[in-house]
Amino acid sequence: MSVTAPKGFVAVGLACGIKPGGAPDLALVATADGKAVPAAAVFTTNRATAAPVLASRAHLAATGGRASAVVLNSGNANAATGAAGLADAKRTCAAAAAELGCAAEEVLVCSTGLIGIPLPVEPLVAALPGAARALAADGGPAAALAILTTDTRPKQVVVDGGGFIVGGMAKGAAMLSPDMATMLAVLTTDAAATPAQLAAALAAAMPTSFHAVTVDGATSTNDTVLLLASGAAGGGPVGDDALAAAVTRACDDLAAQMVLDAEGATKVVRVRVTGAASADDARQAARRVAESQLCKCSWYGGDPYWGRIVSELGASGGAFDPDRVSVAYGGVVVCQGGVAAAHDVSTLAWAMAGPRIELDVDLGLGHGEATVLTCDLTPGYIAENMRTS
Amino acid sequence: MSVTAPKGFVAVGLACGIKPGGAPDLALVATADGKAVPAAAVFTTNRATAAPVLASRAHLAATGGRASAVVLNSGNANAATGAAGLADAKRTCAAAAAELGCAAEEVLVCSTGLIGIPLPVEPLVAALPGAARALAADGGPAAALAILTTDTRPKQVVVDGGGFIVGGMAKGAAMLSPDMATMLAVLTTDAAATPAQLAAALAAAMPTSFHAVTVDGATSTNDTVLLLASGAAGGGPVGDDALAAAVTRACDDLAAQMVLDAEGATKVVRVRVTGAASADDARQAARRVAESQLCKCSWYGGDPYWGRIVSELGASGGAFDPDRVSVAYGGVVVCQGGVAAAHDVSTLAWAMAGPRIELDVDLGLGHGEATVLTCDLTPGYIAENMRTS
Repeated sequence: MSVTAPKGFVAVGLACGIKPGGAPDLALVATADGKAVPAAAVFTTNRATAAPVLASRAHLAATGGRASAVVLNSGNANAATGAAGLADAKRTCAAAAAELGCAAEEVLVCSTGLIGIPLPVEPLVAALPGAARALAADGGPAAALAILTTDTRPKQVVVDGGGFIVGGMAKGAAMLSPDMATMLAVLTTDAAATPAQLAAALAAAMPTSFHAVTVDGATSTNDTVLLLASGAAGGGPVGDDALAAAVTRACDDLAAQMVLDAEGATKVVRVRVTGAASADDARQAARRVAESQLCKCSWYGGDPYWGRIVSELGASGGAFDPDRVSVAYGGVVVCQGGVAAAHDVSTLAWAMAGPRIELDVDLGLGHGEATVLTCDLTPGYIAENMRTS
Repeated sequence: MSVTAPKGFVAVGLACGIKPGGAPDLALVATADGKAVPAAAVFTTNRATAAPVLASRAHLAATGGRASAVVLNSGNANAATGAAGLADAKRTCAAAAAELGCAAEEVLVCSTGLIGIPLPVEPLVAALPGAARALAADGGPAAALAILTTDTRPKQVVVDGGGFIVGGMAKGAAMLSPDMATMLAVLTTDAAATPAQLAAALAAAMPTSFHAVTVDGATSTNDTVLLLASGAAGGGPVGDDALAAAVTRACDDLAAQMVLDAEGATKVVRVRVTGAASADDARQAARRVAESQLCKCSWYGGDPYWGRIVSELGASGGAFDPDRVSVAYGGVVVCQGGVAAAHDVSTLAWAMAGPRIELDVDLGLGHGEATVLTCDLTPGYIAENMRTS
């Protein structure tokens, strides 16, 4: 399962003492032989960049896109921690490298949890020798558990690419938004690929997956997606398209799992915008609707009130003609040509009642399309986020 | 009080039957002698523009900035109602004009309430003769009551400009955001001013008032601010600065009243950003923080967790240096140079506990400044908005 499904990878997850309650909070993913393999990454665009992102970015640059291992901790984001935080991230990599017999630059590091609190680096480093010894080919699920924060369940995926496997794990339940989120994902594959191929495959996967989910419009300080390729599947170099397709399937799956587990969410909502003047307009419109507090409250109540949808579309900044817009919930058209459309009330009620709502908007202007996956806004989200301690 | 405080204006508020429960839902503000006076307006930037906005904009253009009366209804926004909705808005103006003895183009119209439902124009028009007869110099408070929707109290203001008075009323409790909101405001003055002076005074007042409040980031279909000047105070033409200052004070006051009455809010939060590279960067940063679901949840919990503030600042799009940012709540510095700052915990707890939170962010980069007034996100907001019926 998960990151150890592809050949050539081992993993482990355990508790090192960062989380007060003793829950698993340290994961290690490594190549089975300790050797560096091709790797690529996508990092947060947030300018308040967390220390582990700075360290991992520097390491990938230094190695030209190769890595032997990834250290991940939950419970502390090591963000807004200044020079001391960066030193802690680098020390973590060096300590892991010493255990694994690789160079410090060949170790990547990810952190997730509270921002602005110094990383308890001593217990983390002290746990690394034991973690390295416990690395196992069936350690994926334990690693997936150890990276969770407010998530209620682990997020794992395995995709058969046809001759190679892509495996992955992710965490993220709030601070989720296009252009990434408080989310971490580590993907592995046993395909034989170059760092450039891996980067291209990740770039291809982003628009429909991690860039197409939003819970609360927040783009966090720590967002990281990593992809390592062991080449252990045999069979020669993988094709660009086959790799991109498998990685996209894996990322789509993990992204959907994140929205399904969003903090307090009771409904997942797929917002599909068609007929926009451009793809950019479509993305902007879909995101505006998906992030609207008012629309999210309506979804929570199962209320098909489309007036808020049209209002958000009109304010989204893209081309908009109120006389051409149509809105449908679960295929039931509630607004046509910008005004209320007659519809079957009981079919509509059925479409709004379930845990999954399909919202289709057609702007009637062109061929731009975009889909965003989001969720409702509930008292549970507020309860989860009103206090950090 | 309110719109009838300046000389030369009369008003009325009553129930015409749009709201099912029989609550007041029709207001009329008019010049005492029925004659048109200089007028100016600011309308929503939402492209899903409601019919009454289209009608009022056309009327002001046709008259070159003069008006005799404003008809306002609550309970139905007459938005997303197509050509029929525009005909209803025009019919309302014509019916009021017939009662008041002015031209239809000299009547402006505002609606607020649910979107996408045909306006019950018959009861509205049927109530206009009685409303016109009941117009009175002390009718301001009744008019202010009749324009409310989810507001819990009327919003009125009177400002003494020194030789002239500015009076006003407003409504708005959600769908509130910079660049206006589901808000209506009618301001009157007995100063002698030209339409151009009135437009300039409104433009001067907007940045610190209605454009500086946000509840949920929504920009509605109906937002309208109107200003009419009777000239009845005597004393000759008003000075530009004196007029702008008085109108700004009135608008600031009404805007603050709207945030104080925001749906479900338990705390008003003043977000002040200084040290930005530009004023635009400052506004963007302040708005990003003020509209963050996560920050709003923290405020509800009285939690001074500043990691979310820094994360939003880093994602706001403007210039940002994580090593230069400082954050203070109620004057208690919790983050300095991008990392946690030692502080007195009990003073901080005190600053977070009250109904008013002062948040100061310094970006340490330049001289750009901006202030936004917002509120917390609470279960009450969700309860208010999860069902429209």
